[in-house]
Amino acid sequence: MRKLITVSREFGSGGRELGKRLSDALGIAYYDREIVTKIAERTTFSEKYIGEQIEKKPSSFFPITIGRSFSYAGNPMFEQNLSIYQEQSKVIREMAAKSDCVIVGRCADYILKDLNPFRIFVYADMESKMTRCKQNAETGEDLSDKKLKATIASIDKNRAKYYEFYTGNAWHDMLNYDLCINTTNTDLESIANVISNIFE
Amino acid sequence: MRKLITVSREFGSGGRELGKRLSDALGIAYYDREIVTKIAERTTFSEKYIGEQIEKKPSSFFPITIGRSFSYAGNPMFEQNLSIYQEQSKVIREMAAKSDCVIVGRCADYILKDLNPFRIFVYADMESKMTRCKQNAETGEDLSDKKLKATIASIDKNRAKYYEFYTGNAWHDMLNYDLCINTTNTDLESIANVISNIFE
Repeated sequence: MRKLITVSREFGSGGRELGKRLSDALGIAYYDREIVTKIAERTTFSEKYIGEQIEKKPSSFFPITIGRSFSYAGNPMFEQNLSIYQEQSKVIREMAAKSDCVIVGRCADYILKDLNPFRIFVYADMESKMTRCKQNAETGEDLSDKKLKATIASIDKNRAKYYEFYTGNAWHDMLNYDLCINTTNTDLESIANVISNIFE
Repeated sequence: MRKLITVSREFGSGGRELGKRLSDALGIAYYDREIVTKIAERTTFSEKYIGEQIEKKPSSFFPITIGRSFSYAGNPMFEQNLSIYQEQSKVIREMAAKSDCVIVGRCADYILKDLNPFRIFVYADMESKMTRCKQNAETGEDLSDKKLKATIASIDKNRAKYYEFYTGNAWHDMLNYDLCINTTNTDLESIANVISNIFE
């Protein structure tokens, strides 16, 4: 059985860690940040810029009004976002073609749909996401609970819009995934070990 | 670790079979139809009637208009449905108290929430649900595809309304569950064996 796994995840749900642990348990490649680095190598955009734009729906940037309707054509921000997405799709396809792997985020489930990847969605309740964000926060990132909650909600809203824009599907629709895992009260190491048995 | 598992499931998704296989793999009790039998023993309602009413939202029956608002108080159908639900809650609590078990449907995830059950939701795409329904159909149940699709959609709509009425939560909201399993392209025996490892 081909081990091609995509992980979509709510911010703070531990999806990235789960994906990493899964790739370790299965002894296969893991791609997350590497996708951004590859796009930067191939385009004129910096890693920082790509990191900022990636998983944001392009239409949030200055639509141009033509007559009574909106158009994005000719809008440089829109064009840039689209070309990042196209490059990203190419990178993800190449990674999947190279070897078994876990790919985190970035509509990989949709981009690779003809290869039938095993599609995981990772989520958790807000309290648990806030706790995980605090544990993983870098020094100086001490947000108030209110601000942290708003930040998490905002990032997930952007991810949902991004996903819907490029795939035409609702991000939270279970039917897009083979398995949806609530990490609220879960030990990520144990769950990764259990899930890895699906592919053995 | 206590093995208390609830399985909510879309009609035709194989949730019942998955629950049964899980209980077999773990060597624990399995409750589904037994709940109806127990309620019938304790009330004046027949198993057939309970089977028909169970997992239907009571408000679908003749609301009584009082002034400008609707009221269900005094409506015999509503009262009957409520008393079935109350008896069902008692039965489910007793079953959970007796031993480790798998309980299928009937808001068990919500009724037992103070016991922290492991809550599974089982779903599938329409085509796969139709195929499974046809395989499991009793003789004489040969519906056209159009009718079968409508029946599946209608049963799930009722389940969703029922769940929302008694729990206040949306049936398809992932946050109500610990694990959501898409059985579209899945071998139920293998997935039951993998999932059972969570409790070992």
